[in-house]
Amino acid sequence: MKSGRRTRLSEIGEDLLLDQLLRSLPTGRRVIRSAGDDVAIVAAPDRGELIVLKTDCVVERVHFTTNTAPEAIGWKAMMRTLSDYAAVSGVPEFGLITLIVRRNMEVSWVKRVYRGLTRAARRFQVSIVGGETSSTPGPAAISVSVVGRVEKKRWVSRKGGKSGDDLFVTGRLGRSIRGSHLCFVPRIEESRWLTANFRIHAMIDLSDGLGADLPRLARASRVGFELDRAALPLAAGATTENAISDGEDYELLFAISPRQSERLQTSWRKKFPRLSLTRIGRLNPRRNSQSLKRGYVHFR
Amino acid sequence: MKSGRRTRLSEIGEDLLLDQLLRSLPTGRRVIRSAGDDVAIVAAPDRGELIVLKTDCVVERVHFTTNTAPEAIGWKAMMRTLSDYAAVSGVPEFGLITLIVRRNMEVSWVKRVYRGLTRAARRFQVSIVGGETSSTPGPAAISVSVVGRVEKKRWVSRKGGKSGDDLFVTGRLGRSIRGSHLCFVPRIEESRWLTANFRIHAMIDLSDGLGADLPRLARASRVGFELDRAALPLAAGATTENAISDGEDYELLFAISPRQSERLQTSWRKKFPRLSLTRIGRLNPRRNSQSLKRGYVHFR
Repeated sequence: MKSGRRTRLSEIGEDLLLDQLLRSLPTGRRVIRSAGDDVAIVAAPDRGELIVLKTDCVVERVHFTTNTAPEAIGWKAMMRTLSDYAAVSGVPEFGLITLIVRRNMEVSWVKRVYRGLTRAARRFQVSIVGGETSSTPGPAAISVSVVGRVEKKRWVSRKGGKSGDDLFVTGRLGRSIRGSHLCFVPRIEESRWLTANFRIHAMIDLSDGLGADLPRLARASRVGFELDRAALPLAAGATTENAISDGEDYELLFAISPRQSERLQTSWRKKFPRLSLTRIGRLNPRRNSQSLKRGYVHFR
Repeated sequence: MKSGRRTRLSEIGEDLLLDQLLRSLPTGRRVIRSAGDDVAIVAAPDRGELIVLKTDCVVERVHFTTNTAPEAIGWKAMMRTLSDYAAVSGVPEFGLITLIVRRNMEVSWVKRVYRGLTRAARRFQVSIVGGETSSTPGPAAISVSVVGRVEKKRWVSRKGGKSGDDLFVTGRLGRSIRGSHLCFVPRIEESRWLTANFRIHAMIDLSDGLGADLPRLARASRVGFELDRAALPLAAGATTENAISDGEDYELLFAISPRQSERLQTSWRKKFPRLSLTRIGRLNPRRNSQSLKRGYVHFR
């Protein structure tokens, strides 16, 4: 991998770029986990809690088109950021919106985007507390930053998976081909229930596809993994390839001790009868044990 | 002012747009001041403190050009957001960066932007805790969200100015024609000193120019104002017109009881011998008492 003077962004993946950018950032002693993980975690004045911070964005012609319903754009912009709260089992509380739009766009378009943002925020009792707008001569972009909290004892990250853990995913994979990436509901309620009732070793939300996110979880946990492809819960019309590579499913992938697996599955069916929970493999001691097609990675 | 279906953004100013967008946002009972003011203020778990939240952005071909030094772009992106902390006398703590860039941009450009962001953050002991990147087919954009705190007793806003108050500005105005908008230092230290030693009734940072920001402060305080144009502290080479209309000075404008003015000026000279502090007018009971050329307003 080159990193010389003339390297273009298209030559390196987002993970590597962020890794290089964020290596030498200024951080204070209250910062527990900073950029590079799904969210940032900082110590709160209240000792039992942590502050969770996350920002994400959607860009016209990358994440949506001129034909996308504006409400769906707003919904997606908010929910992408909230999905990372599901990943860490956090509670999102306050949202800040940055809207970058062309001067010739219609006010009604902007208002409809905000309607989508607002509906999505209300769904999880998030207060939108700040908004900034700027004009641009190019594609529209919407950036959403959210601040929230998580109890120290319930915080889950990508790290912490143990060799021998069972791997589970919520819902069905490969849905995004049908456009569900525009109206998905992050698994925050499910994640909060999981950490209230079980010891979850590691968790991630599937934003870039199982093929990218499962190796990330394994790498962060310093273990390998085995995937049972035949077990993958496919969405209607989706292939195994869609399920592994498409991304934007926003389902949860998590690792849990096999000793808790049975109780988990029984309780889950009672609590969430309409959402599947599927064991799709396990963590093992061999690192990089299985290669997977990569999911969606920015700049590639 | 039209607000029908076909209204273009270019037909309405940013203040009005934000006003319309933010009117019916979901907010919870912990939200004390939300969008529309310089920053959002929410109740902290610690009863003596408030949480401050702010987001801002810079866009290529709007706030900087392809020729601008990347370090200066990063510096400006961070400092614009931090300047709002000066306005409310808050302490910025944690930063989140969203970087929207073209795939064919050089990695070194992005790294140099981050160098600027990092230097600016260090200047005020801000920890950059999160970063997100996205590709775009258009102009680059950098959005910076910052979370911090302010003591309940020291929080200042645009509201609270009283008829009869003296109006002061820090530094010299009209500097941005010389390019100082790329390397300015927000007046956070000065603002913290002011609220530690004086009762500041209302304050704002001059981002859009005195001509736009002074009326905002007066309107929010429900009073009028008189401006002593001859007293305006002009930067070298700047005209009164520059000082009123150019924007991006990022100096502080504040209202204080005339009974405190003399002590303020004496102590200021001792504490900040190299930074001027100038009385430029006062608040009066007549609303909209004096018209001013408008400063820079987005979309117009």
